[in-house]
Amino acid sequence: MTSATLSARLPDTGLATAPLAARYAGAEPRHALTNPVIDLILSRRSIRHYTAAPLPDGALEAIVAAAQSAASSSNLQAFSIVAVTDPARKARLNALAGDQSHIARAPVLLVWIADLGRLRAIATDNGQPGDGLDYLESVLIGVIDAALAAQSAAIAIESLGLGSCFIGALRNDPVAVAAELGLPAESFAVFGLTVGIPDPAVTTAVKPRLPQQAIVHREVYSSHQADAELSTYNERLRLFQAGQGMRSIDWTRQVADRVGTAAALKGRHRVGTALRRLGLKLA
Amino acid sequence: MTSATLSARLPDTGLATAPLAARYAGAEPRHALTNPVIDLILSRRSIRHYTAAPLPDGALEAIVAAAQSAASSSNLQAFSIVAVTDPARKARLNALAGDQSHIARAPVLLVWIADLGRLRAIATDNGQPGDGLDYLESVLIGVIDAALAAQSAAIAIESLGLGSCFIGALRNDPVAVAAELGLPAESFAVFGLTVGIPDPAVTTAVKPRLPQQAIVHREVYSSHQADAELSTYNERLRLFQAGQGMRSIDWTRQVADRVGTAAALKGRHRVGTALRRLGLKLA
Repeated sequence: MTSATLSARLPDTGLATAPLAARYAGAEPRHALTNPVIDLILSRRSIRHYTAAPLPDGALEAIVAAAQSAASSSNLQAFSIVAVTDPARKARLNALAGDQSHIARAPVLLVWIADLGRLRAIATDNGQPGDGLDYLESVLIGVIDAALAAQSAAIAIESLGLGSCFIGALRNDPVAVAAELGLPAESFAVFGLTVGIPDPAVTTAVKPRLPQQAIVHREVYSSHQADAELSTYNERLRLFQAGQGMRSIDWTRQVADRVGTAAALKGRHRVGTALRRLGLKLA
Repeated sequence: MTSATLSARLPDTGLATAPLAARYAGAEPRHALTNPVIDLILSRRSIRHYTAAPLPDGALEAIVAAAQSAASSSNLQAFSIVAVTDPARKARLNALAGDQSHIARAPVLLVWIADLGRLRAIATDNGQPGDGLDYLESVLIGVIDAALAAQSAAIAIESLGLGSCFIGALRNDPVAVAAELGLPAESFAVFGLTVGIPDPAVTTAVKPRLPQQAIVHREVYSSHQADAELSTYNERLRLFQAGQGMRSIDWTRQVADRVGTAAALKGRHRVGTALRRLGLKLA
């Protein structure tokens, strides 16, 4: 099947409307193509409130198939998924991830593993030392493969009427998470993804992003162009915060506080040390 | 708009058929939900042959909006995109990326930047040292934000009837790529994504992936379960290779060769050194 054939099944292509406006809080580009898939992608929100129901039959299989359909560097398929449903294990992982209660409440927590341990085992079985795994590049391959796969999964999840939320806090203590999940050496959890049926009693707004001019550069990078957009975004995000009953704070101040100190990383400044303890060399 | 509302617009949910079978070369799960979005995601292939036509008006804006709609760690939005269309610049980047001719042939090369330089500038402007940026964790945040965004973009690209291909080889020489694109210190290219109208004269098959049992683990990781699947996958991939007129080789042998030695990384064993030269501390 060619892409042209696929496109033919998406007849509503036209100019974007409501989802685009919500994503940019009124600072959207004047002319952007759309179709139902793009509307779905633009409408994505992180869902932190779920009903108690398990996933429908066949949902996990579809989500995994979507994940595996993402591109993979040299087809190494350098990731694995641990699907956690046991309440006690979810509670322990929740405690390791800064006690975000939706981890315990979601019916499934998918943990995305950069699985260099599998690659090492395959190399060893084929008489290779696997020295290429000792470099930062191989960690990046595992992380990128896992992230591309997880985002395909997240979009499939939305398309099924389910919701999800990424859990970067699973990197707060990679050694403990690896022990909890029984991971082999050189494999580590990149992030989690809670999945479930969104609680219909809780509405979640689309979070506005930086205007496109702030992040898209033509031919070469232009700091000057991007900087001019930040104060406008601060104002738009303050309006969004007010509408959501959230504390009003400039985005640039949030960023500065979040990356300002090692302490603000909430333990994750030790990720390099932790990965080395898990057997990765990071050369 | 709730997820349930979105789902209501995707009425074809049912049991998966052709795209799922192609993705697993006959080893597909027996029961998996599907809908047009999932079919689209499952049908994705890397497109390396494009017509000479530019992208349609409004396509890049839609692609970027899709990218920005992916989740972002703490809303840091730690990525930027450099859209390269200048033939001379594309040719130079192509030379830096191992001379993959489709980089020069594609109308647009999107370069995905882990943009810690922007975060550093914001921290400095707000009176923070930005010490959190000196750790491997911050590089992972930039890489993950860029990858989630790029995969959303890749699915939007497919939905528009366009094609794309990830270019990990832009990490072969991160210092030279940063110089070519005029990146600020502490910002680097994670990968490229060629985008264009697929050449209708060239058909590209869906590449079969490992069976789900090889990568999905229930509650805890099981090496034993996964290993049993690999020889079956080797056989299925050999059949696929034969059908495509490709050299027949076991996947496990390909993996062993690809990660077997530092030399097999094609220069990318120096990524850590290169990122440090670009100002990242990777503590």
